[in-house]
Amino acid sequence: MSHPVPQGFRLAGVHCGIKSNAAKEDLTLIVTDKDSVAAGVYTQNLVVAASVTQNRAKTPCENFRVVVVNSGNANACTGERGAKDCREMTRLAAAAVGGSEGQALVMSTGIIGHFLPMEKVTNGIAAAAAKLGTNAEAFDSAVRGITTTDKFLKTASRSVEIGGQKIQITAMAKGAGMIGPNMATMLCVVMTDAALSASLAQELLTHAAELSFNCISVEGHTSTSDTALLLASGATGAAPTSDTDRAAFQQTLDEVCIELAKLIPTDGEGSTHLITLDVTGCATRADAHQIAKTVANSPLVKTAITGNDPNWGRIVSAAGYAGVAFDPNKVTLTINDMLIYESGMPTVYDAKRVSESMRDNHEVRLVLAFGEGAASVRFWASDLTVEYVNFNSDYST
Amino acid sequence: MSHPVPQGFRLAGVHCGIKSNAAKEDLTLIVTDKDSVAAGVYTQNLVVAASVTQNRAKTPCENFRVVVVNSGNANACTGERGAKDCREMTRLAAAAVGGSEGQALVMSTGIIGHFLPMEKVTNGIAAAAAKLGTNAEAFDSAVRGITTTDKFLKTASRSVEIGGQKIQITAMAKGAGMIGPNMATMLCVVMTDAALSASLAQELLTHAAELSFNCISVEGHTSTSDTALLLASGATGAAPTSDTDRAAFQQTLDEVCIELAKLIPTDGEGSTHLITLDVTGCATRADAHQIAKTVANSPLVKTAITGNDPNWGRIVSAAGYAGVAFDPNKVTLTINDMLIYESGMPTVYDAKRVSESMRDNHEVRLVLAFGEGAASVRFWASDLTVEYVNFNSDYST
Repeated sequence: MSHPVPQGFRLAGVHCGIKSNAAKEDLTLIVTDKDSVAAGVYTQNLVVAASVTQNRAKTPCENFRVVVVNSGNANACTGERGAKDCREMTRLAAAAVGGSEGQALVMSTGIIGHFLPMEKVTNGIAAAAAKLGTNAEAFDSAVRGITTTDKFLKTASRSVEIGGQKIQITAMAKGAGMIGPNMATMLCVVMTDAALSASLAQELLTHAAELSFNCISVEGHTSTSDTALLLASGATGAAPTSDTDRAAFQQTLDEVCIELAKLIPTDGEGSTHLITLDVTGCATRADAHQIAKTVANSPLVKTAITGNDPNWGRIVSAAGYAGVAFDPNKVTLTINDMLIYESGMPTVYDAKRVSESMRDNHEVRLVLAFGEGAASVRFWASDLTVEYVNFNSDYST
Repeated sequence: MSHPVPQGFRLAGVHCGIKSNAAKEDLTLIVTDKDSVAAGVYTQNLVVAASVTQNRAKTPCENFRVVVVNSGNANACTGERGAKDCREMTRLAAAAVGGSEGQALVMSTGIIGHFLPMEKVTNGIAAAAAKLGTNAEAFDSAVRGITTTDKFLKTASRSVEIGGQKIQITAMAKGAGMIGPNMATMLCVVMTDAALSASLAQELLTHAAELSFNCISVEGHTSTSDTALLLASGATGAAPTSDTDRAAFQQTLDEVCIELAKLIPTDGEGSTHLITLDVTGCATRADAHQIAKTVANSPLVKTAITGNDPNWGRIVSAAGYAGVAFDPNKVTLTINDMLIYESGMPTVYDAKRVSESMRDNHEVRLVLAFGEGAASVRFWASDLTVEYVNFNSDYST
C-alpha cells in the first residue's frame, strides 16, 4: 500500500543487476531537496558492515541530502575494499543530487562477504536519480528496492498537527529476520516534513526504536547491518518546540515505528503466528525487556506456539533463566486473555479452548506478570516452524 | 554399556507405573552401605523443582545414604503439595535403607505441573530397595530408570590410582535437551569409592561441571531441574590428599563428566550433528564461555550446520552480539580444520570440500579464535532440524 510522501522528499527504486531477477528493484535513492536533518540508530553487533560504520560517523546531522540503499549484497565482512566501495557509493549518490560525500548515507543488505558490483551500482544510482518522484509508483519502487526475502512490503504513515500545521510521517522497512543464505538485516527509513534539530531527531528516533525495533525477534540473531534512519526535510516549517507538540510528534513516530516493527516478525521466515508478549510488573524496564527477549527467543516457547500448545512450563521456565531476579510465587500468565498460571501455580483452565484460540488466531497474546514493580515492555516475535529450519538449512554457500 | 559399580554402592531401577509403558523403568535407587559424601550442582533457573530446593539444602554433606530418582514426572511447579510429596519421597527412600530423611536426596524428571502419584512412588521405592545390587543388570536398570526421551543410555567410567590404590569413578546421566511435552532436564549421578571430604567433593564436582555440563546446549533452554551429584562412598579408603592425587582425581572426574556431557547434545532431539566449538584467544574464560554459548545457541548457526553449510557470516556475526568486546579484525575461524575466515576476512577456501566434510562427519568442529588473550573454552551443541521442530510443536497439553 502506498503512502503520501512528505514534502521535500523525492525517491525512486530501480533494478541495476545486483539481484539476478530483473523484475526486482535492487537500488533505492531517497533524496531531500535541501539540506535536511538525519538521525540514525544502528545494530549493536560488534561485527558491522561498512555502511554502519560510515553512517554512525555522519549522524545525527543537519546537512543530509540523500540515502542510497542497495539490496542483494550486504557489503559486510569485505574489509578495506568494502569500505572503499561504500564510500564510493555515497560519493556517487551525493554527486547525483548535487551534494558532497558527507551529505550521503548508505545501507546495504543481502549476502555477506561479497564485493559490491560497483559498475552496476554506479549505473543504478544514475538511473534512480533520473527517476526521482513523489507519486505512488516512485514510493513503491523505492520500498521494493530495499527488500530481500520479504514476502510483503512494509510501510506505515501518519499525519499529525504540530503548531496548527499538518505534518506527515511516512516510513518503510525491510526484514524477515537475519535469514536465508547469508542474508541479513532490518532496515528502516522514516521520512517527515517536520522541522527538527539534529539532536531532537536523534532523541525522538532513539525513543521510538527502543519501543519498536528493539522489541522484535525472529530468531534473535542480531544482524551486522541493522539501521533505522529518521529524515526530516523541514519543508513544512512546522517545528515541535512546545512540550505538547513534541509529545504529539513522539507519539506519532512511535506508532509508525511500532506498526512497521510488528510487520517484521509477522513476515518472519516460515512463521505461522505473531507472538505479542507483554511482560509487566517488573522493577525496571530493562528487567522486563531482558525477560521478554529471553522468552521470545526460546525455541521451546516458539515451537509450543507453533503447535498451539498453551505450554506454560516452557514460558515460565524461560523467564527463570533470563538473569533477572523475581519471586516465582508471584508469576501470573495469560494466553489470549485466558488465565493459565497464577501466583506461581497452574490454574484449572480449559486447555482445548486455549489451544483452539491459538489455532484460530494468527496473533497469540501472552501476558507474563511479575510482582516486582510497575515497569513493563511489549515485545513481538515469530514462532519457529519446520519451514524456518528448511529455509535456513538449505545449502547456500 | 554397563560399567563397574564402585565399592560401597548398590543400585536398582524398577517400573512402578509413573510412565505408562510397563516395559520402562521409572524409579531408581542408588544407595551407599554407610554414611557417605555427597556434593551437588544445580540449575541456575530461578524457577526450580522441589527436588532442587531440597537437595540444595542438604549438599554438600558427609552422611548421605540414598538418592531416589523418578522419571516421567518432574514434580515442578506443584507448589506446597509438590514440596510435601518430595519430602515424603526422601523419607520413604531413607527408611527403606535404614536412614533418616536428611540422608536422602531426590531427583524428578518428566512432565511439569503434575502431582506425583505417591502410591506408585511408595511401591516403587519398596520394590527397588528389594532389588538393590551391583551387577550389570542392577546398573543398567538404574540407568534406564532415570531416562525420559533419551534415545540411548548415557554412562561413562574410569579408574585411577590414588595413593597406590585403584579407585573407580562410574557415572550415569540423562537428557536430550529440555524437550518434549513439558519434559525437561539433565540429571547426572557420579559414584566413586574414593574417600573425599564434603568440601573437596563439592570443589571437584563444581570444577568438572564447569568444563562439562555447563558447556553443552541443545536449544539453550535451561531446565527447572538440572542436577548433577557426586557420591563418594569412601569404601576403598583411598583419599586424594596429595596435590598429585587430587589432580589425578580431578582430571579423571573431568573426563567422565565431559564424556557424559557430550552424549547429551549428541542425543539432542532430532539432531544430525554434534557441534564441537572451541573458542580461543579470549581475555577471560567467562568471555570465551559467553561467546561459545551465544554461537552455539544461534538458530542460524545450528541450521547452517544442519545444512552442511560453512556459513561463516552467521558464526562470526553471532559472536558479535555475545556482549563481549573484541576486535573483529583479529577473528579467525576454522571448520573441520579448514581455514574459512582469517583476521576478519574470508579466506579463499573450497566450499564444496568443507561442505562435504561436514556432511560426512557427525561431529563438526569449529574453532573460533580471537586475538584478545589466552583464555579458551570447549562447548558442545546439537544442530537444529525439522525433526526438533516437529517433536516440540506437537500438541501435547
